[in-house]
Amino acid sequence: MTVFEDLESEVRSYCRSWPVVFDTAQGARLNDVDGRSYLDFFAGAGALNYGHNPPKLKGPMLEYLAKDGITHGLDMYTVAKGEFLHTFEELVLRPRDLEYKVQFPGPTGANSVESALKLARKITGRESIINFTHAFHGMTLGALSVTGNSMKRGGAGIPLVHATPMPFDNYFDGTVPDFLWLDRLLGDAGSGLNYPAAVIVETVQGEGGINPARVEWLQGLADLCHRHDILLIVDDVQMGVGRTGPFFSFEIAGIRPDIVCLSKSISGYGLPMALTLIKPEYDQWGPGEHNGTFRGNNLAFVTATAALREFWSDDVMQRSTIAKGERTEAALTELAAESSVVELTPKGRGLARGLAFSQPELAAKSCAAAFGRGLLMETSGPSDEVMKIMPPLTITDAELEEGLAIVRDSVLATLEGVSA
Amino acid sequence: MTVFEDLESEVRSYCRSWPVVFDTAQGARLNDVDGRSYLDFFAGAGALNYGHNPPKLKGPMLEYLAKDGITHGLDMYTVAKGEFLHTFEELVLRPRDLEYKVQFPGPTGANSVESALKLARKITGRESIINFTHAFHGMTLGALSVTGNSMKRGGAGIPLVHATPMPFDNYFDGTVPDFLWLDRLLGDAGSGLNYPAAVIVETVQGEGGINPARVEWLQGLADLCHRHDILLIVDDVQMGVGRTGPFFSFEIAGIRPDIVCLSKSISGYGLPMALTLIKPEYDQWGPGEHNGTFRGNNLAFVTATAALREFWSDDVMQRSTIAKGERTEAALTELAAESSVVELTPKGRGLARGLAFSQPELAAKSCAAAFGRGLLMETSGPSDEVMKIMPPLTITDAELEEGLAIVRDSVLATLEGVSA
Amino acid sequence: MTVFEDLESEVRSYCRSWPVVFDTAQGARLNDVDGRSYLDFFAGAGALNYGHNPPKLKGPMLEYLAKDGITHGLDMYTVAKGEFLHTFEELVLRPRDLEYKVQFPGPTGANSVESALKLARKITGRESIINFTHAFHGMTLGALSVTGNSMKRGGAGIPLVHATPMPFDNYFDGTVPDFLWLDRLLGDAGSGLNYPAAVIVETVQGEGGINPARVEWLQGLADLCHRHDILLIVDDVQMGVGRTGPFFSFEIAGIRPDIVCLSKSISGYGLPMALTLIKPEYDQWGPGEHNGTFRGNNLAFVTATAALREFWSDDVMQRSTIAKGERTEAALTELAAESSVVELTPKGRGLARGLAFSQPELAAKSCAAAFGRGLLMETSGPSDEVMKIMPPLTITDAELEEGLAIVRDSVLATLEGVSA
Amino acid sequence: MTVFEDLESEVRSYCRSWPVVFDTAQGARLNDVDGRSYLDFFAGAGALNYGHNPPKLKGPMLEYLAKDGITHGLDMYTVAKGEFLHTFEELVLRPRDLEYKVQFPGPTGANSVESALKLARKITGRESIINFTHAFHGMTLGALSVTGNSMKRGGAGIPLVHATPMPFDNYFDGTVPDFLWLDRLLGDAGSGLNYPAAVIVETVQGEGGINPARVEWLQGLADLCHRHDILLIVDDVQMGVGRTGPFFSFEIAGIRPDIVCLSKSISGYGLPMALTLIKPEYDQWGPGEHNGTFRGNNLAFVTATAALREFWSDDVMQRSTIAKGERTEAALTELAAESSVVELTPKGRGLARGLAFSQPELAAKSCAAAFGRGLLMETSGPSDEVMKIMPPLTITDAELEEGLAIVRDSVLATLEGVSA
Repeated sequence: MTVFEDLESEVRSYCRSWPVVFDTAQGARLNDVDGRSYLDFFAGAGALNYGHNPPKLKGPMLEYLAKDGITHGLDMYTVAKGEFLHTFEELVLRPRDLEYKVQFPGPTGANSVESALKLARKITGRESIINFTHAFHGMTLGALSVTGNSMKRGGAGIPLVHATPMPFDNYFDGTVPDFLWLDRLLGDAGSGLNYPAAVIVETVQGEGGINPARVEWLQGLADLCHRHDILLIVDDVQMGVGRTGPFFSFEIAGIRPDIVCLSKSISGYGLPMALTLIKPEYDQWGPGEHNGTFRGNNLAFVTATAALREFWSDDVMQRSTIAKGERTEAALTELAAESSVVELTPKGRGLARGLAFSQPELAAKSCAAAFGRGLLMETSGPSDEVMKIMPPLTITDAELEEGLAIVRDSVLATLEGVSA
Repeated sequence: MTVFEDLESEVRSYCRSWPVVFDTAQGARLNDVDGRSYLDFFAGAGALNYGHNPPKLKGPMLEYLAKDGITHGLDMYTVAKGEFLHTFEELVLRPRDLEYKVQFPGPTGANSVESALKLARKITGRESIINFTHAFHGMTLGALSVTGNSMKRGGAGIPLVHATPMPFDNYFDGTVPDFLWLDRLLGDAGSGLNYPAAVIVETVQGEGGINPARVEWLQGLADLCHRHDILLIVDDVQMGVGRTGPFFSFEIAGIRPDIVCLSKSISGYGLPMALTLIKPEYDQWGPGEHNGTFRGNNLAFVTATAALREFWSDDVMQRSTIAKGERTEAALTELAAESSVVELTPKGRGLARGLAFSQPELAAKSCAAAFGRGLLMETSGPSDEVMKIMPPLTITDAELEEGLAIVRDSVLATLEGVSA
Repeated sequence: MTVFEDLESEVRSYCRSWPVVFDTAQGARLNDVDGRSYLDFFAGAGALNYGHNPPKLKGPMLEYLAKDGITHGLDMYTVAKGEFLHTFEELVLRPRDLEYKVQFPGPTGANSVESALKLARKITGRESIINFTHAFHGMTLGALSVTGNSMKRGGAGIPLVHATPMPFDNYFDGTVPDFLWLDRLLGDAGSGLNYPAAVIVETVQGEGGINPARVEWLQGLADLCHRHDILLIVDDVQMGVGRTGPFFSFEIAGIRPDIVCLSKSISGYGLPMALTLIKPEYDQWGPGEHNGTFRGNNLAFVTATAALREFWSDDVMQRSTIAKGERTEAALTELAAESSVVELTPKGRGLARGLAFSQPELAAKSCAAAFGRGLLMETSGPSDEVMKIMPPLTITDAELEEGLAIVRDSVLATLEGVSA
Repeated sequence: MTVFEDLESEVRSYCRSWPVVFDTAQGARLNDVDGRSYLDFFAGAGALNYGHNPPKLKGPMLEYLAKDGITHGLDMYTVAKGEFLHTFEELVLRPRDLEYKVQFPGPTGANSVESALKLARKITGRESIINFTHAFHGMTLGALSVTGNSMKRGGAGIPLVHATPMPFDNYFDGTVPDFLWLDRLLGDAGSGLNYPAAVIVETVQGEGGINPARVEWLQGLADLCHRHDILLIVDDVQMGVGRTGPFFSFEIAGIRPDIVCLSKSISGYGLPMALTLIKPEYDQWGPGEHNGTFRGNNLAFVTATAALREFWSDDVMQRSTIAKGERTEAALTELAAESSVVELTPKGRGLARGLAFSQPELAAKSCAAAFGRGLLMETSGPSDEVMKIMPPLTITDAELEEGLAIVRDSVLATLEGVSA
């Protein structure tokens, strides 16, 4: 481990909670160099919805490598990209009656967010963006400017000034009508709000503490954007690709965002890849106006195509995710009921689940306890008060039960320490 | 090809010059779906210094995949990352007597630039950056703000205001002493210049038209930064990893930048990966202050390690690159001498070469003519006036000659059209 | 009148509503070149609280001019400035138990606002400011950035980005607890709000439509600033110097702002002059860090001193203003009750009064009707929906009645046109 | 003096150099409360070109006050404003064949600069401005952003980012062709310069150290602006109204700026007043788009009109100013020749003169020595290295000689201390 401490920057983070050296991984299990195995309730921060090294995706990748398929293609036409586009159209867009042009904005979620913000500004000629409390959209300067966390914002070293935060759903626990503030500001020429180009929103805030927005709130937001002539950008980087059940997390609300950001699990294999989906009338880019060296990661196109075929040809995955999510919720609700010392609140949608602690520091302690029991989990939320439960969607029922039991043991052991 | 035109965004660019569908590639050759083969003087915009799918790197990657090595690791400790760090230290840093901490800032060059700018601002408490005319550093908002191209800057949709451009070497063809303007402004408390945190520079501007800075200029810049207490960031994303001969393009000047950005060819296989190298005293990041989902692309770590071992255990590659570069320069010089109609100027260093046309539009025409003859080349420069010659460093001498002959034919054929 | 149309910029504004050429003025009356007289319910936009050319102030000014007292003094020590400071201390600060250092920031209210914002940023090291919906603070770039009106903001030609608007009192008609949004954002490190240096507020918004904040709201705001370590700036440019009754408009709430902006009526004679009052612990300016050519308008110091002595040695003026304000309110309430067609809402505090029309355009029509009857009034409010009633505080009771009768006639005549 | 130290903010500045209390003033003489008299080589920082309380202007002002002429008029039509406009047209614009619309932007030079920048941005739709090294344009946020002094810029508390400084004339002592850098950047789409709306320039930099731009440089700048479609703004706040000889300081170059800023001496009596002159085709303001309470200072209009009639009906003043300037230059040149210890450099144009010291701190010492001898002078320049010689233009020849003799004595006495 010395090599990391000697050579790697102090910026490293996850490894501080999990001070072991990982080696191999399959499905919902990782193994370290000492042969210890870990169950995975983390899923690569949402980039491994199909688990580690899914065999049905590995096969096509190995074949592609074997035949020396183009690996790095920028935005050249390639067979692998063509097949991905065709499959995405056939299995994702058309069945949902969605019409989008596809941009490959670079390989990360932040690339997709950056391209979405640029395009929204170009389309409208306005510069300001509305973001939401506890939002997370990435760490490059544009994406960071619409992110809520003050420590991360401070890292910019310059004032981040082109976004105005608005209350996410339930920010006031239902005591204030939805969009009261935003709707009023937008309709008031004396409000002092810089009229925005777009709203950017996550349907379920991941880093923000696994906060789902209600369906009615999302519908209200789409309606507000329409009424005020503002673009609606859904950042589905973490919650898309089935994390909440359906392929797109916004399907549940029946809305049609103007721009959608996808990344993380889209390649299916944890390979860097991102998409920006744009309503055709808004595809107003000039050639090369946004680019990036790694926007043509053809290995990722191959595994992404295989993943769509394997998991999205029918609704088996979607139903299974919802069922596993309900089982998880039930287990967390039961656990919450057992705690008399500390208030525990189950949160989430689909297999994006969280357990919020009224004493924030206990979330990290419980995660540490879980790690000691061989389960990988991280915290999220503005005070890191939420244990984040994000297993691969492909986790088996038995593994899910095993993990939930460890969660229960870890939390109870942690609480025991508190009450003592 | 319909699938691309129907589904892909209008932002697509390279495919407009090369309207074929590529399928496979090996070394310096690509093949399209119709079985036509292309020689590669483009090298994935600098991301394929070792050519397409280099067998010595493919082997380790296939092994790693076969054993289900961790693919996606964020900043967890993994065997693959440890081996990369160890190898990088052993084969790159130590032999050059360089001491750097290594940050994995996300998988793209822009991620590295963004992290470098953030860190420089954090270290100094200043917000402004000095960049250079014709610079290119990327398309995310921070990176774009230090990029020169006005079309790409315009894409931001907001004023890009935290950088001040200064003349790159030879901007005035040697008629003005180096750094006259910058040095004076920095020493003058009434100059109106916002005192900068850092200077960011490419030693050879790639997108800027294959412009090498002279060794003395680079040394002068390092000295100026030192005298004025400003950090020096070298963006070696395109020119590093041997493109100009030595591993780092700045070695030739004997300077030691405070921060170095690496990406593109660092993985060796065209896989998304980037590094930010930081002098130990400047590694002032807090844990997690900058992060990113794909900063732990372990497949890339595997190929990067293999590439270092294969190509950087001795100086064979470096000497070969310099020799091929000289051969290329000689061929271009000869070609330039043949043109009486249009002025042709050979430019570059190592195997980053260019041929500038006094009539800019002839560069694109010559590239198109080369494509018709089975050679991939792109233009660069502020007016796209330069044919860019960037073959894989591993190109054989025979392939290089073949390509140079096509360049010659293509240029002469284009010029004939002009003189006619 | 041709000379104005030929030579003066299109930016001119009041003269478009009152297309006559004014010549002389005394007390609450102006006279035009054709000998017509106008009663003044406008008071120089609040700069003539003691009426036109008040004789008790004119005398000292004439004496000062006669003896060739220094007219223009920058920030040199002068007898006139010393007497003003002494008198201000004796008659304004000490009796109210207020301790402030006095800055002469330049001769306009905007100068005072600019200096207040700069100083708050310097003190806190933060750059952002909280302003309120419908705020007006001036037209220079800093002051404009905290102003609400979108037409005026648009005039900046650059994004105004360092302020975030919050709801002024009653923005939601009492349906939302005071400061719900602001208080929550400030206490939430994940809110995305740039933590502010200061809040800037008017106790009664003048341009914003003669909106008074409730006493409890002002007290709540002062408390919120204290709890969150934010400076409180009261812009008393229009509402200070007795307009609402007491010398400072915030006295009614018993709060002690950290910085106070004064201008408009402070000189008493309509001469350009402004003050920035700073709590001693916050007087962290370096010498000359903010300056301005006309910050030492000694004629204004002379009349300002005379005004303080004449009007603020006792509480006669304050009581009279409150009484006249109550009489005005009663008249407006009576008038409002007469209207069955359009909803009329009396607003205001002291002698800052307004009559809001549910059909905004009728306010301007009523003002035009009043002008036709020899009464000067302007509109205010985000939709110009308010007739603004701001007579000199020294108006006689008879003049006040005369004016209120004209208001009544003008409004009723206008409404007749509507119902017809 | 206690009252100032007790009550006035630490920001006060001139009074620290001249710790006496001034009382009365006439022509080129001020008197303090102790009956001591001072000769004035300062002229209210350029606001008193006609000396203190000029009798020919005082008469009309007293008459106007006596008849209760309107004092405070905002942008209402008034007799006093009409007479000023008419006279300005007749005596200033028409004889010089200049066509400008006149805006009253508020009473200070900074108001004029703010309005000029806003208008230039509105006209062009661009946000960036080109300013010059050592420029001074004012202290409000917009004006400060085009000012060079880093201490004053730092006072803003936010990054000042919408201007890029360029070298003023002679910044490189003639070793570099004029506008080499700016011209090249503007013509290069890859330069990274945000294309500017306007250039703002002083023809002689006052605060910048009494630096005159050569006539050819000013002509070159006007030509450059024309060629690149950028507006030319001349800030003639300090150097206009005859300071350099002609009414406008740019007349000497025969150029016609698109926008001109005037203030300081325009009222003639040291009263706050400013003008923005706009070429008719650029008068694109909407009504009220820029405003300000004290833009209608009618006392100032009265004295300004009287001043134009008194001093600008013929060329006596202009010729006298040039002659006095030449006499001053001769005296300074002679003095410079006497110094063997320190290099002294006479600078300036007309009666804007300076003496630069190669050891900057000696300039302040010499000014202090002059004050001890009864002469008011201040320093200027980026290192306060220049003794600034700006007497009233109406100074008598005898007074000028008296002052120059004191300058000589003071400098020589100071130098004696050095050589000792």
